[in-house]
Amino acid sequence: MTAEATLARFREYMVGPARFMNLLTCFELGIIDALRANPGMTAAELGTVVGATPAAVEQLLFLLVKEGFVAYDEASGAYTLDALAEVDDIDLKRPLDFMDKIKVTTLRQLFYLTESVRTGKLVGLRELYGFDGDLYEAMTVHADLRESWSRLMDSVTARIDPWFFDNVDIPAGSRVLDLAGNTGLGAIHTLKMKPSPGLRVTTFDLPGREEACLKNFREHGVAEQCSFIGGDVFVEVPKGFDVVLIKHFLNMFDKSEVLKILNGVRGSLEVGGQVHILVPIYSEDIKESCTVDYYPSFFLGCATGQGGPQKLSTFRNWLEECGFTVTKAIAQHPSELPPDALPLQAILSATKTV
Amino acid sequence: MTAEATLARFREYMVGPARFMNLLTCFELGIIDALRANPGMTAAELGTVVGATPAAVEQLLFLLVKEGFVAYDEASGAYTLDALAEVDDIDLKRPLDFMDKIKVTTLRQLFYLTESVRTGKLVGLRELYGFDGDLYEAMTVHADLRESWSRLMDSVTARIDPWFFDNVDIPAGSRVLDLAGNTGLGAIHTLKMKPSPGLRVTTFDLPGREEACLKNFREHGVAEQCSFIGGDVFVEVPKGFDVVLIKHFLNMFDKSEVLKILNGVRGSLEVGGQVHILVPIYSEDIKESCTVDYYPSFFLGCATGQGGPQKLSTFRNWLEECGFTVTKAIAQHPSELPPDALPLQAILSATKTV
Repeated sequence: MTAEATLARFREYMVGPARFMNLLTCFELGIIDALRANPGMTAAELGTVVGATPAAVEQLLFLLVKEGFVAYDEASGAYTLDALAEVDDIDLKRPLDFMDKIKVTTLRQLFYLTESVRTGKLVGLRELYGFDGDLYEAMTVHADLRESWSRLMDSVTARIDPWFFDNVDIPAGSRVLDLAGNTGLGAIHTLKMKPSPGLRVTTFDLPGREEACLKNFREHGVAEQCSFIGGDVFVEVPKGFDVVLIKHFLNMFDKSEVLKILNGVRGSLEVGGQVHILVPIYSEDIKESCTVDYYPSFFLGCATGQGGPQKLSTFRNWLEECGFTVTKAIAQHPSELPPDALPLQAILSATKTV
Repeated sequence: MTAEATLARFREYMVGPARFMNLLTCFELGIIDALRANPGMTAAELGTVVGATPAAVEQLLFLLVKEGFVAYDEASGAYTLDALAEVDDIDLKRPLDFMDKIKVTTLRQLFYLTESVRTGKLVGLRELYGFDGDLYEAMTVHADLRESWSRLMDSVTARIDPWFFDNVDIPAGSRVLDLAGNTGLGAIHTLKMKPSPGLRVTTFDLPGREEACLKNFREHGVAEQCSFIGGDVFVEVPKGFDVVLIKHFLNMFDKSEVLKILNGVRGSLEVGGQVHILVPIYSEDIKESCTVDYYPSFFLGCATGQGGPQKLSTFRNWLEECGFTVTKAIAQHPSELPPDALPLQAILSATKTV
């Protein structure tokens, strides 16, 4: 790569934050919805509808016209949706939910990335929220973080769980533990997508999640087959289960902590017990990875101050280091993902054989 | 553009903030300098040098390896500069100064863009600094904003002023007013780049800038030919000048305010008086504009809560609306700019003919 090409690429990085919020603000203000409802509005008309000056509307729409998202007619001053008219609502909701999550959990926090990396603490959460701890703990007390995150994760889970459960084996009548199962959605999906007589699922997470989890079980009519155990995965993993699920969790930690978790799980299982892991990964050839653009700085600066996705081969090696026999290690193919997807997900299944 | 292409383009927008800080943090931590000094370091060695965990170093460098900025040798675990080795220090300093300015003045503030547009106020400055006013006022009390901004603007001015003065006519012995001339750099450049017997330059800006400005004049040995007038351009423009310079200023305001400024300048000039304007512009074909990626959201959300660049033809029309006769309107050609440049600059010269 020539110096010229490198500097041109730097330019793409430099405009990243401004472009991101310019686009998102056009949606937040309601400019795009207004144009969908009434094509051909002028900046003055849009300004009246969305509560902004015509000059500000015009400035914000310059970029969307440059991109071909919106069209502008010089003669009449009228704006209409251009490429954005071709995108279905449901396809648009997906990146917009993600953009809101990036805005709320990431954008400001990234300012403190260097200091977060130096200290291993989430300096952004401390500076912006006065909170010492990780994003998942902060969410329990800060509704803005929780709501933005949950809206995204609920739709992500709705898309990814069918693929996960299609690809894992949960023997009939198993006793299943959903490790770090939050407020029970994984348990509910297990029952719905892997039904069998006698199947029982237990959500294991911090004790503070119990109330919301049990409420979810009741509302989904699965209170009979589901239960909750409060605890800390780094202290002790509950015994008495045939299958342990670890979804969206191992990527939050550095290797030393991941090995503690996996060793804890192995210790809790009988020989023959299985673990099924769902985790975002980097491609083996990092140059092809879509996951790597967002997740390193998100985990280090905004989520946990450590961790991040790894290559599938790395997670596989870590399972084997802990004495598991890996029986499956598969990843989504990038071509299966929507074009706006950031993470590539993988499933690893392993058995305690000795 | 297909819906697929639009969503893929959204993805580029989504990763913008995270990619920006991932790259900048590698420089801030000193990882790039360390690799330049000692090629072939491992993540563990780099971590020791820069004060970060090896895991964090590895996570941050994934993206730079993807981009080809840095190379990674799987067998030895050694990193070396790849494309970054080809970029001169002086070429790298330019985007890095700009990235620091974006981080400090823009990144967090953008979170509040929508609310800033709705209110016409810089909500980010209020929320983050407890400051009510614009960025230029905030800089007078907040050293972090001032230092990052000044470092960038001093190098921008050093590059752009020779082009500006090459292209404007300042008759020998003129009395020149540098409108919104800050702390005198424009006046000093006028004397150095357009020397003539009897030339005198006056910096006009808010009274708070007087002390620093006069100090600059003394340090550059131009105190005899330069002076400072404190005042507000929206109240009264001083009279008695042949030439008025307006650099990096008109783009901060909406049209109504720009017309007030231009009318004030015209009122202060005798017939035959000239105005020379330096201003960032959008290309006439917005699809070719490099300026539009950063500046709309910067001005609306971070700098003034209004304004922004315009097309050259727009600034020309505004001058003519105010009764000026435009004698020159030229823009930089994108091919003359470094590949990392964000703004395209223009010069407009005009004469008061009646």
